[in-house]
Amino acid sequence: MATHGTQHLSIGVDVGGTKIAGGLVSEDGTLLGSARRESPATDSSAIVATIADLVEELTATAEGAVRGIGVAAAGFVDRDRSTVLFAPNLAWRDEPLRADLETRLKLPVVIENDANAAAWGEFRFGAGADVDDLLLITVGTGIGGGVVLDGQLMRGGFGIGAEVGHMRVVPDGRLCGCGNHGCWEPYGSGNALVKNTRTEAAQSLLASDLVARAGGDPDDIDGPMISAAAAAGDQFAIDQIKEIGTWLGAGIASLAAILDPTVVVIGGGVSEAGELLVGPVRETFGRLLTGRGHRPTAEIRLASLGNRAGMLGVADLARTPAR
Amino acid sequence: MATHGTQHLSIGVDVGGTKIAGGLVSEDGTLLGSARRESPATDSSAIVATIADLVEELTATAEGAVRGIGVAAAGFVDRDRSTVLFAPNLAWRDEPLRADLETRLKLPVVIENDANAAAWGEFRFGAGADVDDLLLITVGTGIGGGVVLDGQLMRGGFGIGAEVGHMRVVPDGRLCGCGNHGCWEPYGSGNALVKNTRTEAAQSLLASDLVARAGGDPDDIDGPMISAAAAAGDQFAIDQIKEIGTWLGAGIASLAAILDPTVVVIGGGVSEAGELLVGPVRETFGRLLTGRGHRPTAEIRLASLGNRAGMLGVADLARTPAR
Amino acid sequence: MATHGTQHLSIGVDVGGTKIAGGLVSEDGTLLGSARRESPATDSSAIVATIADLVEELTATAEGAVRGIGVAAAGFVDRDRSTVLFAPNLAWRDEPLRADLETRLKLPVVIENDANAAAWGEFRFGAGADVDDLLLITVGTGIGGGVVLDGQLMRGGFGIGAEVGHMRVVPDGRLCGCGNHGCWEPYGSGNALVKNTRTEAAQSLLASDLVARAGGDPDDIDGPMISAAAAAGDQFAIDQIKEIGTWLGAGIASLAAILDPTVVVIGGGVSEAGELLVGPVRETFGRLLTGRGHRPTAEIRLASLGNRAGMLGVADLARTPAR
Amino acid sequence: MATHGTQHLSIGVDVGGTKIAGGLVSEDGTLLGSARRESPATDSSAIVATIADLVEELTATAEGAVRGIGVAAAGFVDRDRSTVLFAPNLAWRDEPLRADLETRLKLPVVIENDANAAAWGEFRFGAGADVDDLLLITVGTGIGGGVVLDGQLMRGGFGIGAEVGHMRVVPDGRLCGCGNHGCWEPYGSGNALVKNTRTEAAQSLLASDLVARAGGDPDDIDGPMISAAAAAGDQFAIDQIKEIGTWLGAGIASLAAILDPTVVVIGGGVSEAGELLVGPVRETFGRLLTGRGHRPTAEIRLASLGNRAGMLGVADLARTPAR
Repeated sequence: MATHGTQHLSIGVDVGGTKIAGGLVSEDGTLLGSARRESPATDSSAIVATIADLVEELTATAEGAVRGIGVAAAGFVDRDRSTVLFAPNLAWRDEPLRADLETRLKLPVVIENDANAAAWGEFRFGAGADVDDLLLITVGTGIGGGVVLDGQLMRGGFGIGAEVGHMRVVPDGRLCGCGNHGCWEPYGSGNALVKNTRTEAAQSLLASDLVARAGGDPDDIDGPMISAAAAAGDQFAIDQIKEIGTWLGAGIASLAAILDPTVVVIGGGVSEAGELLVGPVRETFGRLLTGRGHRPTAEIRLASLGNRAGMLGVADLARTPAR
Repeated sequence: MATHGTQHLSIGVDVGGTKIAGGLVSEDGTLLGSARRESPATDSSAIVATIADLVEELTATAEGAVRGIGVAAAGFVDRDRSTVLFAPNLAWRDEPLRADLETRLKLPVVIENDANAAAWGEFRFGAGADVDDLLLITVGTGIGGGVVLDGQLMRGGFGIGAEVGHMRVVPDGRLCGCGNHGCWEPYGSGNALVKNTRTEAAQSLLASDLVARAGGDPDDIDGPMISAAAAAGDQFAIDQIKEIGTWLGAGIASLAAILDPTVVVIGGGVSEAGELLVGPVRETFGRLLTGRGHRPTAEIRLASLGNRAGMLGVADLARTPAR
Repeated sequence: MATHGTQHLSIGVDVGGTKIAGGLVSEDGTLLGSARRESPATDSSAIVATIADLVEELTATAEGAVRGIGVAAAGFVDRDRSTVLFAPNLAWRDEPLRADLETRLKLPVVIENDANAAAWGEFRFGAGADVDDLLLITVGTGIGGGVVLDGQLMRGGFGIGAEVGHMRVVPDGRLCGCGNHGCWEPYGSGNALVKNTRTEAAQSLLASDLVARAGGDPDDIDGPMISAAAAAGDQFAIDQIKEIGTWLGAGIASLAAILDPTVVVIGGGVSEAGELLVGPVRETFGRLLTGRGHRPTAEIRLASLGNRAGMLGVADLARTPAR
Repeated sequence: MATHGTQHLSIGVDVGGTKIAGGLVSEDGTLLGSARRESPATDSSAIVATIADLVEELTATAEGAVRGIGVAAAGFVDRDRSTVLFAPNLAWRDEPLRADLETRLKLPVVIENDANAAAWGEFRFGAGADVDDLLLITVGTGIGGGVVLDGQLMRGGFGIGAEVGHMRVVPDGRLCGCGNHGCWEPYGSGNALVKNTRTEAAQSLLASDLVARAGGDPDDIDGPMISAAAAAGDQFAIDQIKEIGTWLGAGIASLAAILDPTVVVIGGGVSEAGELLVGPVRETFGRLLTGRGHRPTAEIRLASLGNRAGMLGVADLARTPAR
C-alpha cells in the first residue's frame, strides 16, 4: 500500500577535504534541499560540529520524518559503518563518527566510503539503475571504486573493499600516495594526467598551445586546461587523456576478470572529458579482457549524477539501519 | 562486528483513553526511562501535541540516536502503520497520525494496534521469547488479540487482523460494543466478569461477602474486588472468574484450530487473577481442542511484561522502517 | 537471466479417500500431464506404493528435471512437512510419508494438508493470484481452510493451522465428525446441505420437485440433485443452499476479524452452485463483519482452479525444499 | 523442527580433463560414497553420458532423496548455472549441460565453475567455515579463484567472476594460456613453478640435487620433484617455491584491496608445499597490502579439503535451486 502523505526522507552529507555538502533527499532520489559549509579539514571535532550544524539546517526544512543521516567520506570505514578507521585527508584515525553524530543529533547515522556511496547512488538513481552488477570507477585526483554485486553494495569483510586504485599494475612502478609502488592510481588518475602532461609539455613542441593556455609555464597546466584544450581539438591534450584512458581500460579488464560487472560506470572530475576519455577506455578494455569472444562483456558508460552521486547514495543507504 | 559505543534506542508510546505512557527502550528491551501524561482523549490534535511533548522529553535523555518512535493505540491501524482508521475510545477516524507526528518530530514513526504491539512485546522480551508462533489474548475491559506466526507479526491484508474479541461464539447472543451480537468479548472480558457478577450477586446469597466488600450494593462491585475476594478464597468470586475462563478456553480452542500457535499468552488486567483464571482456561481448552490426542497442543501461559508489553513491543517495531 | 531450454518441473499428487490423482506441473502452473489410480485407502503401505508408481509414470514423461514431488492429503501434517500425524480417512497415524517416498523415489518430497495446498494453488495460479493475503474455504463434504498471509502459506506452530471447519459456532451445537459439538462444519458443509435438505424434504410440500428428482425418497437426495434443482429455479433447493451460505458468511465474518484477508475464495464441490451459494455468503458477511463501515472489507470470490487446486498448489510447494 | 529420519542428500561431480569424480554428500558435507570414471575429454556427448552413468551409480546407493546434482567444471559457466560458455580443456562451447543432464536424469542439476565450487566447499565445510568473506586461490597448473562475500558466492553479472588468474600484473609480460600477456597465472602457477625451475636448473650449479632427482635432465623436472626436494631441505627448490609465493602474495595484496576478504585460503596441488609456499605468500602480502597498519588484514590459510573441495562445494550448491 502506498504511504499517503508520508515522505521517507533522509539526509546525505559528503565530507571532502575543502567543503562539506549536504542534501535532503526523498526516497526516489530527488534532492529536496541542499546546504554546504567550508571543511575544517584537520580538526576532527570541528568537522563533527559542522556536519551536525548542516544536518540541523536541512532537518528544519523537512516536511516529514528524517529516517537517517548518511555521511560519505574518503577513507576506510569499518564493516559496521560507524568508525572511520583511516582518512588521510581528514586527519581521522579510528574516529567513532557515528556515535559522535548520533549523540548530538539523536538520529540514526551511517558512515560510508565516498566511492562506495557514489557507486550506490549511480546504481539506485543513475547510470546503473537498470542493472544488478556494477563497477564504478571515479577518476579524480586519485582513483576510487565502488562495486554493486547482485544488487548489494560490496563492502568486504572489514568494510574496506573496492580500493581498486591500489591494485598493483606495474611491479616496482611509480610511487603511489599510499606508500606502495606501482599502484593503478599513479597511472590512471587525474593527478597522473596533470603530472604526465606537465612533464611532456616541458619537452615537446606539440604542447605549445596548451602551454600558452597555462600562461607559458608547463608547471601551471591543470586538469581543466587539458580538458578544455582537448575539447577544442588539441591533439597533444587529446593524447594525454588517451594515455590515462588506456591505463584505465587495462585496469578495468583486470577488474572485470575478477568482479564480472554488467556495467562499468566512469565518474569523477576527469570523466567530464567524456568520450575523449571513455573511447580509449573502451578500446583497451575490449582488447585486453580475458576470454573476449567467448563471453558477454560489460558495457562501459559515463556516470550520470555528477558530484551528487555520493550524497544521493549515502542518503539512500541511511534509510536501512546498520547491522 | 559489534557496534561499540552505539545504542540502538527507540521510544514506545502507549496511548490509552485516560493516560499516555512512553518509554525510552534499548535494543534488548530494557526500559531506560519513562514518562507519562494525562490523555486528552477526545481532542485528536491535543493527543498529537501531547505525544510529541512526551517524546521530546524522552529524546532529550537519550544517550545515542533514537531510531524511531512507536505508538500503540486501541483501534484499527492501516496496513501501512500510518493511519488510525477507527479508534472508538479516542475519537479518531482516518487519522493520519504518523504523518502528523513525523512532521512535528522529524523522526520515523510507526503506529500499531495496542494488542498487536503487546503480542510483539511478549514475543520479543516476555512470555513467548522462546517460540516462533504465539497468540496473545489480552483480557481487560474487552478482549484483544495479537498473533505472531513464524516470527512475524500477523497484521492482515488491511492491517486489521487479530480482532479475536469479535469472533462470534453465540448466534444472536449478547450485544457487543462493536454493534454485533454474540461476539466473544461480552462473554469472556473483564466487563463481562463485572456485569455477570453484579447480576448474580443481586440474586445469590453466596455473594454476601463480595457484596459486603462493595459496601452493600452489588452494582458497586468492580474487577479488583472480585480478584481480591477470589484470592482470599471466596468461592462465589472464584466461580465468576471460572465462568470467564471457561468462555476464554472455548474461544482459544477455536483460535488454535485456526492459527495453531505453539504458546498462548494470557495478559491484560483480568490475568492478574493468575491461576484462578488460567486454570479454567487450560481445562476447557484441553477438553475442546479439535483433534486433541492426535496432535501437539499449545501451552497456555500468563503474560510476563504486565502493562509495559505494548510500550516495549511498539518501541521494538519502531526500529524497522514501515514498508 | 532466463533459463533457456530448462523447465522447472514438479509433480503434485492429491491423495483422496477413493482416488489418487497426480500431475506433472511446470513452473507457471501449467498441467503438462496427469495420471490417476484407485486409492487403497486403508492400507498405508499400499498407498505409498501407489503414489510411487504414479510418480514414476509421470516422471518418465518429463522433458527436464523433476525438482520435487508434492503430496496433498486430508489430515494433520507436521511442521516439517514430512509426517502425517493424523488422517482419519486414510488410516494414517504418525506416518513418515516423506521418508518412505524419498527412499523409494530418490527425489525430494513434501507433504501438505490438502486445503493448504489448494489455498496455495489458488494464490499462485488461480482466484487469488493478484493479492498477498487470502483465505480459502473449501466446501465439500466437510469445510476445509487454507490461509496465505503476506505471500506466505500459514502453517501454524505445529503445522496444523487453518482447520477452520472446527471453529465452534454454536455452544453445545450439532455433533461434528471430529467429536466436538457445535463446529462450523456441521452447519456449513456439503454434508450439512444434504442432511438439512433430506430432513426438511421429508416434512415439506415445497420439496416435491426435488423429491421427485430423487425418485420419490427424500433420503436419496444428494448434493448434485440439490444443485441441479436450484440451478433450474427450484425455490426449495435455492433456500437450502442459502441456509448453508448464511452459515458460511457468518463464519467468514469471524475469520476475517481474526485473519483479515484481502480476498476470500470459496471452493470445493458445493461452490459449483456459484452465485446461489456465494450471494448469501456475501450478504451475511457484509452484515456481520465487525467494524464494517470503518474498514476495508475482503472481497469474496469463487475459486477458479476446480479440483486441480490442491495438485497444482502442492506441486508448486514441492519446488521449495522443506526446512 | 528436525527432519527425523530424512537425509538431505546431493551428488557432486568434478569434471576434469583426465577423470570425472563424483560423490554422494550429506547436508553437513560428509562424503557418503564416491565413484570415478575416465574423462572422454574431447567428446562432449560422451562426457554427458559418463556423468549420467556415474550419477546413477551413486543414486542407487542413496538412502533417501537426492535433492540435486552439482557439476563442477573448469570454464566459464553462465549466470544461470546451466550453460558452459567456454571450457578450453573440455572442448565445450555454449554447451547446455544442465538441460542435457536434467533430461537424462530427471533430477535438478546445477553447473558451477570448479574454483567457485571449491571456494564454496572450503567456506561451508573447510578452512573458511568460521568466516563470511573468503577468497580462495587454487594454485594448480593455472591459478583459479573463488570468492565468498557476506556468505554468498560471488558469481558476477554474467556468472564469470573470480577469474583472478587473468588479472594483469606485468604490462606486456609473459604470455598466458588465455592469449593475453602479463596475467598473474604465468607468474604464480604450478606451470610457472615448473617452467622457472627447468630454465634455472639448466643454468645453475645449485640445482644439481634436483636435476639428479630428474634423472639428469632438467627438462624432466616436475612439480612433485620440486616439492619433495624442498621438503628435504634443498635450497634451490625452496627458492623456486618462494619465487611463486612472492608473486602470489603480491597478487593477493591487489585482490585484498579490491575484495577485502577476512580469510584467504590457498589450495590446489602446489599448496601441498605447505608453509614453504604460504610463508612467502604471507610475507609479501604483509609488505604490500595498501593501508597496512591502518586496517585489519586478512588471514592467509592453507585449504583443508584437498581435491574434494569442488565436489563437496558443488554438491552443497545443488541443494539450492538455480534462479
